[in-house]
Amino acid sequence: MRTSIATVSLSGSLTEKLTAASRAGFDGVEIFENDLLTAPLTPEDIRARCADLGLGIDLYQPLRDIEAVPDDLFARNLRRARHKFELMRRLGADTVLVCSSVDPSALDDDALAARQLSELADLAAGFGIRVAYEALAWGRHVSTYDHAWRIVEAAGHPALGTCLDSFHILSRGSDPGGIEDIPGEKIFFLQLADAPLPAMDVLQWSRHHRCFPGQGGFDVAGLVRHVLRTGYTGPLSLEVFNDVVRQADAGPTAVDARRSLLLLQEETGAGALPAPAVPTGVAFAELVTPDAEPLAGLLDALGFSRTARHRSKPVDLWQQGEARVLVNTGTAVRRDGTRLAAVGLESPDPRGAARRAEALLAPVLPRRRAPEDAPLDAVAAPDGTELFFCGAWRSDFTGLDHPPAAPHVRHIDHLALTQPWHHFDEAALFHRGVLGLRAEESVDVPDPYGLLRSRAVGTADGSVRIALGVGAAPTDDTVHAQHIAFATDDVVAAARRVRAAGGRLLPIPANYYDDLAARHEFADGELETYRDLGILYDRDEHGTLRHCYTLTVGQVFFELLQRDGAHHGYGARNAPVRLAAQHAAQGGAGVTGGCSTPR
Amino acid sequence: MRTSIATVSLSGSLTEKLTAASRAGFDGVEIFENDLLTAPLTPEDIRARCADLGLGIDLYQPLRDIEAVPDDLFARNLRRARHKFELMRRLGADTVLVCSSVDPSALDDDALAARQLSELADLAAGFGIRVAYEALAWGRHVSTYDHAWRIVEAAGHPALGTCLDSFHILSRGSDPGGIEDIPGEKIFFLQLADAPLPAMDVLQWSRHHRCFPGQGGFDVAGLVRHVLRTGYTGPLSLEVFNDVVRQADAGPTAVDARRSLLLLQEETGAGALPAPAVPTGVAFAELVTPDAEPLAGLLDALGFSRTARHRSKPVDLWQQGEARVLVNTGTAVRRDGTRLAAVGLESPDPRGAARRAEALLAPVLPRRRAPEDAPLDAVAAPDGTELFFCGAWRSDFTGLDHPPAAPHVRHIDHLALTQPWHHFDEAALFHRGVLGLRAEESVDVPDPYGLLRSRAVGTADGSVRIALGVGAAPTDDTVHAQHIAFATDDVVAAARRVRAAGGRLLPIPANYYDDLAARHEFADGELETYRDLGILYDRDEHGTLRHCYTLTVGQVFFELLQRDGAHHGYGARNAPVRLAAQHAAQGGAGVTGGCSTPR
Repeated sequence: MRTSIATVSLSGSLTEKLTAASRAGFDGVEIFENDLLTAPLTPEDIRARCADLGLGIDLYQPLRDIEAVPDDLFARNLRRARHKFELMRRLGADTVLVCSSVDPSALDDDALAARQLSELADLAAGFGIRVAYEALAWGRHVSTYDHAWRIVEAAGHPALGTCLDSFHILSRGSDPGGIEDIPGEKIFFLQLADAPLPAMDVLQWSRHHRCFPGQGGFDVAGLVRHVLRTGYTGPLSLEVFNDVVRQADAGPTAVDARRSLLLLQEETGAGALPAPAVPTGVAFAELVTPDAEPLAGLLDALGFSRTARHRSKPVDLWQQGEARVLVNTGTAVRRDGTRLAAVGLESPDPRGAARRAEALLAPVLPRRRAPEDAPLDAVAAPDGTELFFCGAWRSDFTGLDHPPAAPHVRHIDHLALTQPWHHFDEAALFHRGVLGLRAEESVDVPDPYGLLRSRAVGTADGSVRIALGVGAAPTDDTVHAQHIAFATDDVVAAARRVRAAGGRLLPIPANYYDDLAARHEFADGELETYRDLGILYDRDEHGTLRHCYTLTVGQVFFELLQRDGAHHGYGARNAPVRLAAQHAAQGGAGVTGGCSTPR
Repeated sequence: MRTSIATVSLSGSLTEKLTAASRAGFDGVEIFENDLLTAPLTPEDIRARCADLGLGIDLYQPLRDIEAVPDDLFARNLRRARHKFELMRRLGADTVLVCSSVDPSALDDDALAARQLSELADLAAGFGIRVAYEALAWGRHVSTYDHAWRIVEAAGHPALGTCLDSFHILSRGSDPGGIEDIPGEKIFFLQLADAPLPAMDVLQWSRHHRCFPGQGGFDVAGLVRHVLRTGYTGPLSLEVFNDVVRQADAGPTAVDARRSLLLLQEETGAGALPAPAVPTGVAFAELVTPDAEPLAGLLDALGFSRTARHRSKPVDLWQQGEARVLVNTGTAVRRDGTRLAAVGLESPDPRGAARRAEALLAPVLPRRRAPEDAPLDAVAAPDGTELFFCGAWRSDFTGLDHPPAAPHVRHIDHLALTQPWHHFDEAALFHRGVLGLRAEESVDVPDPYGLLRSRAVGTADGSVRIALGVGAAPTDDTVHAQHIAFATDDVVAAARRVRAAGGRLLPIPANYYDDLAARHEFADGELETYRDLGILYDRDEHGTLRHCYTLTVGQVFFELLQRDGAHHGYGARNAPVRLAAQHAAQGGAGVTGGCSTPR
């Protein structure tokens, strides 16, 4: 029989995946949409590459959230599908996977689903394309293969069949015997995967996923309150084990553990801590570098002016609007290159903030300063980043230039800090408990060489935002690069300014913009502008996000970011594209420039 | 409130854990039994160390599978408990955790449980010890905290209370409000852990744990047979993703993937392969080394004789009984040190075995041999180990000595091969599909610096046994050491012979033997002999296993192993003790001698 493999089943760039599939003797591939979006190749290039390698493109996947929706929404879905069918014609792919909808707006109406899938198949047939409809195990209304088949059968369209996936069938415990009731010619595709059984019983959950109070989803504080009301006087004792704790150094783990209990005691009224002094803004980000020139060039292109120099240290202040970047050439270690070493947080009570941090076991940093410098309280975060609690810190700097009068950049929107693998949960708890920031949910972000996790912490008003990231494995410093995102009111003008000043922006694959055209409607010329400048785009129910990136200097890069409406995201949807573009810009090696991805 | 942490929550040796807990400011610790068993410190030493560090020993844990059993079994359980209470007196610990039983022989009889726990508390009280009874979420009959409390209440013994664990309560979705119905003085202990929610939904299962057919627990072949009966003519396509595949090199992953489909097609009758030629024994294990002396000394001490030398290569054959070890000084790379490079498998059809391996994409190795050498078919396993399919291979060797007439070692019992992290599942499928071996379940083995996995493959009659191992993370080569286990009929005599010949055996902590005394009864002097020689012991319903280890040379060590009855295990229960002893013997660094454990 013909054998195929989905490109998502292999790591690396699309080219690497295709080469590996061909060498292993596969006859064809399923092209996963993200692999196309992140590839620098045109669809025609991909088609030619596959042909050269003797690979057919057996499936393009997936179309999602198409069917059983109100007619106006379906019209928009058809528009999106038409874009994809045009793309598939360029690719030379003749079968498309449509997954059963997970959209909350989908209706539990099989007749409607059948009618709309039939319309979709009509459209597809005009392109010579067949539609394979598959039940996702977590589909909103259609989650079993026999249900998907009933809808396909009811639609009765020759270009509509079903796709069977062993995972979706067997993970639900469905009886696969019913497959034999489907005519073979209506099974358009068969996807195979195995999986360990059981998914996870409570013993495995316990053995691999316990974490310290405040790092998971349990209401541990609620439970402890109940216990305290009984008059219990014994110890609060942590019994936690997971795959990270088993490997991480005992010292930092024990500190993390005690911190979680201190916070738990505060929360349950069993112990007191100095109150949090929630920061009110980012005073500055400090970069250390052995060579200030590349950074100076980039900051200059971004529109920053060198407005001041520290009285007693080799530290320059670069400023634009309320965004301030310190460039420190005094403490850099050449081997580490350029990196983000410190963050200044504007604090309503610097001493109080430092006292709370100290009570929560954060290392208090000595101030190596001249006698006339303003005293700055500082502690170390779990990743080693120095956190300064700032009141009147600017008196240490003497003026050079004035900041630009009409800035493109208004302030620092957020900082993205990559955490050591063993300390991701610790970092979130630290920023929440010590600084009083709020933590959002953790999200997975696919990188070509692994899955990254990201979790944002910040103030309620967004004046301080930090995106904590972590790689897929202890050795993975794929995204060890840290970055500073600058808020702008006009990302197009800001990006043009960078380019006019000779700065380079990260190039984004053209396929990404073809997908944007399928997903959204744009004014004339708008999309072409984004494509030209490498601006990424996202939209949710709150507003829009437009952002672009500089190339990387050492371990640091910059982002220009425009939020409209009340968009609070960080562009997680665009992150795979950005990561693949960074890999490509660095010649396929780790984003840091070192060949550091585990293979 | 007093704060404690379980030693299992921190990594490293017991000493490292205690130091870390103290430095982080904890008031006390729960000593986890395995941490005591694997420690070289006596209980008195541990007590003194804790006192020096300002740590109380708040809990010793756990006693398992004690209650609600027939009286004769309970008498044995009390005997075991008495041993542990004596140990706790030496430790200075006054509270013991008793988990609700998971033993299949436990009865669903609360009155019996209460009566027996009361008897246990009587015994404990004589030692000044309190018993804290806790419901494990996966307990056989008692799995909720309120059930455990009802039993404690019914027992009405002052030295019996309950232990609450937030994980066991909240993971079951129990309402913690009922805790307030328990008098605080009857809550002897409170263990806290958080955990992510949900444990794993089907989407997470899909995203992180799909694997290639034959590597999981699904009956994928059964499903495919149903599909084939429909007349389906489309491709078999793999849609697999998991955290390993996302990171591993695309090339080997694609080969692994295609191999799984070739085996699936054979299994479903959709494709044919050369039939398996199941090996019938281990012909030899080949070590390569840049320096033959340390190996020669160790093999000599183990009772081997150098019986032959290869006609044309710098390869010696060492033999004892039917155990044969080749020592090759011709191809070693000094940097890699001494390692296990090849395994000779006695094959009923060497050519057929090689043809099957080749059809299943195993790299066929060129034979660098002189014209007069016997042709040996060889392929590379996923970890690079060369597998030779042997017929009449011994004609290449010319005799030196005769093998010993009265050997201690009879044959090679098994080989233990550490796999590269990204290729553990591939390795099991390879040995099963290519060689026709049967795979057992994968087991977790705690190492001081992480959790290892081990999976045995072998023939039905045990004539070939290979234990495949893998570390906890991509960088973890903690157990990169590979080993050869030699079968003996008298491990005590064989171990004495090693010692008499000046060989060194791995020393095992005394605490391990105290625990053996609690678990089993031994003849007079038997346990002292094991303690003296470092012999490990296990017993199951089929028979007993006694085994000991040499120190490590390069990346290789040897095991002497005596199976009595029909014990088919590999001593997984003893592996944590062995691993900790190896860490200790190498000064706390990786077992390979390099400081390679991720911290």
